[in-house]
Amino acid sequence: MKQPFKVPADEINRRIKSIQNALQAKETDGILIVQRVDLFYFSGTAQNGYLYIPAEGEPLLLIRKYMPRAQEESSVRRIIEIKSVKEIPERILDTYGTLPRTLGFEFDVMPVREFNFFRQLFPVADCVDASSMIHKVRMIKSDWEIRQMEKTAELSAETFEYIRNHIQPGYTEMELSGIFEAFARKRGHGAQLRVRDYQTEGYPWHVLSGKSGGMVGVLDSPASGEGTSAAFPCGAGSKKIESDEAIMIDIGLVLNGYHADETRMFAICKMPEKAMRASEAVIEIHNAVLDKAKPGVSVDELVRLAVSKAESLGYAEQFLGPPGYKVSFIAHGIGVELIEPPIIAAGKKDCLEPGMTFALEPKMVFENEFSAGVESVFRVTETGSRLISKVPVEIFIC
Amino acid sequence: MKQPFKVPADEINRRIKSIQNALQAKETDGILIVQRVDLFYFSGTAQNGYLYIPAEGEPLLLIRKYMPRAQEESSVRRIIEIKSVKEIPERILDTYGTLPRTLGFEFDVMPVREFNFFRQLFPVADCVDASSMIHKVRMIKSDWEIRQMEKTAELSAETFEYIRNHIQPGYTEMELSGIFEAFARKRGHGAQLRVRDYQTEGYPWHVLSGKSGGMVGVLDSPASGEGTSAAFPCGAGSKKIESDEAIMIDIGLVLNGYHADETRMFAICKMPEKAMRASEAVIEIHNAVLDKAKPGVSVDELVRLAVSKAESLGYAEQFLGPPGYKVSFIAHGIGVELIEPPIIAAGKKDCLEPGMTFALEPKMVFENEFSAGVESVFRVTETGSRLISKVPVEIFIC
Repeated sequence: MKQPFKVPADEINRRIKSIQNALQAKETDGILIVQRVDLFYFSGTAQNGYLYIPAEGEPLLLIRKYMPRAQEESSVRRIIEIKSVKEIPERILDTYGTLPRTLGFEFDVMPVREFNFFRQLFPVADCVDASSMIHKVRMIKSDWEIRQMEKTAELSAETFEYIRNHIQPGYTEMELSGIFEAFARKRGHGAQLRVRDYQTEGYPWHVLSGKSGGMVGVLDSPASGEGTSAAFPCGAGSKKIESDEAIMIDIGLVLNGYHADETRMFAICKMPEKAMRASEAVIEIHNAVLDKAKPGVSVDELVRLAVSKAESLGYAEQFLGPPGYKVSFIAHGIGVELIEPPIIAAGKKDCLEPGMTFALEPKMVFENEFSAGVESVFRVTETGSRLISKVPVEIFIC
Repeated sequence: MKQPFKVPADEINRRIKSIQNALQAKETDGILIVQRVDLFYFSGTAQNGYLYIPAEGEPLLLIRKYMPRAQEESSVRRIIEIKSVKEIPERILDTYGTLPRTLGFEFDVMPVREFNFFRQLFPVADCVDASSMIHKVRMIKSDWEIRQMEKTAELSAETFEYIRNHIQPGYTEMELSGIFEAFARKRGHGAQLRVRDYQTEGYPWHVLSGKSGGMVGVLDSPASGEGTSAAFPCGAGSKKIESDEAIMIDIGLVLNGYHADETRMFAICKMPEKAMRASEAVIEIHNAVLDKAKPGVSVDELVRLAVSKAESLGYAEQFLGPPGYKVSFIAHGIGVELIEPPIIAAGKKDCLEPGMTFALEPKMVFENEFSAGVESVFRVTETGSRLISKVPVEIFIC
């Protein structure tokens, strides 16, 4: 009998304590967690509900649907069932004897219409943006979280190995994506990648073969690929994969809510020399950044390092996208969402801290020709960086 | 050489005209379309950009990335490239000689933080919620749109046929989902289902076998299933599919941006008698609703018809979920998003109109036992309803 996955009570307690410290520092009386991923993070359950976290004391989990499962999944002690969202203020008043005067909401995801509804529910409260507080707590991963991400990384390594053994000329990009995703789903891949920004759609089928890798597009990523139509103009498309071309495969996977995000270069038979050299160059940049990534280093410094390394290798033009369409980042935070703060982007002042986890993805685009890229997940430790990814950092010639 | 999919110019013109009529009726000077699906709907492209539609005159498409592709995909005549969102007001002023005094936004999806940014960009404008106008235009489908939905329905019918031929005992629910989705992706399925509500995640793997179908949960749907973990507690799970049990398979597919959403009951070898009778009952309810669905009928009336039919068949307790957890709707609009207004829900006053398209999904839950359900996409015509779905409305014994 498999042991069902559960977020341990001490994890939840640590997270609640951290956000309470932030609330106290910002003189905010409480926060109402509404978004489902944040709810899962702070309570252990992603049922339909709301988590009120006061600046001090026990949080209150209000469940609309489905109470038995929420009780099973969450270690929050105070869990009550509500029939309507409108009960929330009354239930908070009942529990704490007072209503918050300053109340935090997730302004980065909550739509205006929903916020207007909540504002009316708490007419005298000063409603403030609490999203930064949430992200500051979430960006530091515990050892338990790192273990979750390692499990996802194992699944990802198996999936890359599977692709290595099954990639064939004649498959369309999208077809190949279906084949390896079926493999991953059988082994626990949750299939739905979580991305916080409502305009960004996380998807695990970024297979860009040959010329598809040379297609710039909608994404805030060096290459967008062809996609399946004008309605979804990014990621894998209908192009057939061929022998002797550079194939960039960027996979997102999720296991028990924790994401992996990795990219490797593939070729069937052989990779063209130009793409081979570029693929080796991105690995060199990747390793150079990993080498310097340690607590206290600013993210801007890491980007400058990557850019100067690319320049010294002769890839100034292609690195991070073609001229006029370069992206500003080389890595993004990752955890219960595929893309989380901090972003390792040019001009940003954030510094690395122990416990942060990133997907580092130096990529180059040779417009109308191909992409070359590599991506690994790493964590920041007290002394430097350590890979969470378990896929060999090499070029896969199949 | 395949013909790339493109939204025809007369489609775009019709849509722009319709929303302009709504803007004029509401005395709103213009609307700024930001969300990617709405952008695709009103401009034909889903690149990174914004569409300003004035109450009168030509719209202005402002593209951040990627201009060449936007020009190829969109038939909007005025397309300009911008480097930053901050240019929008100036570009509107340049083009129209005046700024809107009343400006519509998508309040139902735009996060508070982003709205606050836009409000500062248009400091003197009265910013209003334009989401209802958008939905009112989108809910009436043109013949061209119906043809797109028919193509998706064909793919869906092939996928159901594929499942019928490949379902086997021993597959886990999630494994089966990977197998049929790989099949569908090879044939054009875009894999990413679009759902407007930020709390609802559209996914095409709602495979609930036997007891999984009896699991109530987070979803606003009669049954939620097991899901892959507490982080994603709905849809297919790790339960193995067995012979002689009732299996409910609910598939969403998307082709060129247009969705299908269909459910059929399956069994390997034979279906238990109790589930068989319930599966026949939901088909009877489904057909009874289709029979009465015509212009002028209120959605509330259709729900009451379905409920009274379920009662007369002896399924009052199970219909739409177990007591205490019943959902209020039997159908939802469908088009460029999986779930769109109008919803055929109890107590709602909307009336059917020609051109509306719905996914009709009467379902029953026998808690801890199984689900029985059926779902088809239909459109409302001048004289009644007509199925867009092409899957036979039957129970599949494999």
